[in-house]
Amino acid sequence: MAPMTYCIGMNLEAGLVFASDSRTNAGVDNIARFEKMRVFAQEGSRVIVTLSAGNLSVTQNALSLLELRVRNDPAALGLWNARSLFEVAGLLGDALREVRARDEAYLRAQNIDASASFIVGGQIAGEAPRLFLVYSEGNFIESSNDTPYVQIGEIKYGKPILDRIITRRSSLSDAVKCTLVSFDSTMRSNISVGAPIDLLVYGADSLRVGLKRRLDEDDSYLVAVRSGWEAGLARAFDQLPGNTWL
Amino acid sequence: MAPMTYCIGMNLEAGLVFASDSRTNAGVDNIARFEKMRVFAQEGSRVIVTLSAGNLSVTQNALSLLELRVRNDPAALGLWNARSLFEVAGLLGDALREVRARDEAYLRAQNIDASASFIVGGQIAGEAPRLFLVYSEGNFIESSNDTPYVQIGEIKYGKPILDRIITRRSSLSDAVKCTLVSFDSTMRSNISVGAPIDLLVYGADSLRVGLKRRLDEDDSYLVAVRSGWEAGLARAFDQLPGNTWL
Repeated sequence: MAPMTYCIGMNLEAGLVFASDSRTNAGVDNIARFEKMRVFAQEGSRVIVTLSAGNLSVTQNALSLLELRVRNDPAALGLWNARSLFEVAGLLGDALREVRARDEAYLRAQNIDASASFIVGGQIAGEAPRLFLVYSEGNFIESSNDTPYVQIGEIKYGKPILDRIITRRSSLSDAVKCTLVSFDSTMRSNISVGAPIDLLVYGADSLRVGLKRRLDEDDSYLVAVRSGWEAGLARAFDQLPGNTWL
Repeated sequence: MAPMTYCIGMNLEAGLVFASDSRTNAGVDNIARFEKMRVFAQEGSRVIVTLSAGNLSVTQNALSLLELRVRNDPAALGLWNARSLFEVAGLLGDALREVRARDEAYLRAQNIDASASFIVGGQIAGEAPRLFLVYSEGNFIESSNDTPYVQIGEIKYGKPILDRIITRRSSLSDAVKCTLVSFDSTMRSNISVGAPIDLLVYGADSLRVGLKRRLDEDDSYLVAVRSGWEAGLARAFDQLPGNTWL
């Protein structure tokens, strides 16, 4: 099935920005809302944020597996005692593989796509903020200075504006603005991605959740960005030179 | 393999616009240029333009099959004697199916994607200008008043700007401008789509090719649109309101 999610994570000098839509569907006649953002925070020690895309049963079960394992054996490596985000990304990748090993053949028999992926980022005391993209196969990559953002789901419609605007030095305010523009382009072109948008902003080295906010369809800031962008694009287009051939 | 082509066709009240990139590759270490636009024009009688995406052997062979069939039997239905673009779209779909029937199993055995698609449009004397998208499976759709453009290949990066700007009433000049903006967004985000861009503009009911032009990377109008758009987007972004939460 076509992607029906859009999530962005950014790792900037000023901190991290996470955003996810909250729509899921099993066909366009069965659309519901599920929060795709999960936050694991212990002030002063760690803030870990996961965003998920793809098969909802696979991503939910992967996170539940991690929780269950730690409940059964408090010494097991988990989100609350990992000492590096790198370990966390590996745990998520392993959990994705485990769930797919259990379910994939059964899903495939019904032509259901078992693929799923995570963005995971945040900061654990003792290391810098980090941001990873965990692929459906369980391997993962980390954001870099050249490419300080990662996306999952319906990524292409909203990518050009990120490529043009976002650098490691972008302010958190610009990053939020650009995130909403990127969502707006995506929501216009793919009806299965929709508001509300869950937004989380983390200030570097704060070790606490700075801002967590749910923007509904009619949120005043989202509306202002959307209409301002539409008008700004129209102006930019009108100001482009005409060609002399026609 | 990921798409490595981008083509747009538009069917507007004022006429038709066609554009294609001209890069093809068999892996990023083997990039070459092939014109993806073919024109079949007989002044006063017909102008037919095809744009192709996907497996190059499949699209080339499909067109060659149509030519060969008419050469062997001049009474056979072909591009030069079809009385409707609808027939032409059907011929292309049939030819795609025939080539895939010959080659697909062999390609698949090497994990090579045999999928391929066409945009075909133009005007045949006696009917209005028409525009079709022929899918890889050989079925096809026609553009409409609501969606006056079609795309093939790497379509998503450049779609939002088309959605925002293009209507049936757009001028040919605006349509060309918007086409180049759409290509610019695509080329920035996918390195395998690249200039030169082949551009063809057809004025409704003229029954002759109005403008055919190849825009190289350093074409002065392409450069002006690219830099003007970059500056205009930056201005539009800066003029968006900041949020009050951070």
